[in-house]
Amino acid sequence: MGFEYGKRTKVWCCRDMMGGFNHYVVVKFKDGVAVEELTEGLVKMISGIEHVKSFQWGKDIGGPDFLRQGFTHAFLMTFNGKEEFDAFQSHPNHVEFSKLFSPAVENILVLDFPPTIVKA
Amino acid sequence: MGFEYGKRTKVWCCRDMMGGFNHYVVVKFKDGVAVEELTEGLVKMISGIEHVKSFQWGKDIGGPDFLRQGFTHAFLMTFNGKEEFDAFQSHPNHVEFSKLFSPAVENILVLDFPPTIVKA
Repeated sequence: MGFEYGKRTKVWCCRDMMGGFNHYVVVKFKDGVAVEELTEGLVKMISGIEHVKSFQWGKDIGGPDFLRQGFTHAFLMTFNGKEEFDAFQSHPNHVEFSKLFSPAVENILVLDFPPTIVKA
Repeated sequence: MGFEYGKRTKVWCCRDMMGGFNHYVVVKFKDGVAVEELTEGLVKMISGIEHVKSFQWGKDIGGPDFLRQGFTHAFLMTFNGKEEFDAFQSHPNHVEFSKLFSPAVENILVLDFPPTIVKA
C-alpha cells in the first residue's frame, strides 16, 4: 500500500503532457423548467463545438440531500487546454445558448481546473 | 448543425451498455488544513482500491468566486457500475481515510449519477 513512485511520476508527467482543462458545472433548475428539452439543447450545442474534447452529464441519484445541497445535474466538459476552453466560452453558439440556459437556472456552481489524472 | 440521429442513438446505446457510475465531489477545506498532504493521502487511498475505474482531481483556477461558491477542489471518480461504487464506499481503506478527511472539510457537495456520455 506504499505510494508508488512510478505511478506518481506518471501522474505528473501526464498532466503536464496533456495540458488538459476541465469545466465542471453543477446546476439546480428552477421549478417548471423543461429540463429534458434544455439538456437536449445543451447536448446539441456542445456536440457542435469542436473545441470540446469530451462531455458527459447526469442527474444525481445519490444519497442524502445535504450532500447535494439541492443541486441535481452535473455537466463535465474536458478540453485539450485552456485555449480551447476559452474558445468554447466565447463561441457564438455557446453565448446564444446561454441566453436560454441562464434564466432556467436557480443555482449554479462552476469549477475550472487543469486536472491531475490519477487513473485514466 | 441539426441533431444527428446516429449520434443520439449512440449516446443511449453506450450509456446503457456501459452502465457506468460517476461520483463527483467538490470540497472547500477548513483554514489551516494541510491540503497537499491530504490530497496525497486521498490519491494513495483511491489508487489502492481496484473498484475505482478512473480518478482525476484539480484545484479551481477559474473565474469569479460567486461561480465556485467558495469551493476550491473537485474530485471526479468513475466506476463500471453502482455495485463497484458501493464497494468503494464501504471499502475499509475508504472508511478509514474518511476519519481523516471529514474533519478537514468545511463544505462538501456530492453528486452521484449514471453518466450520459456525449463525447468520449
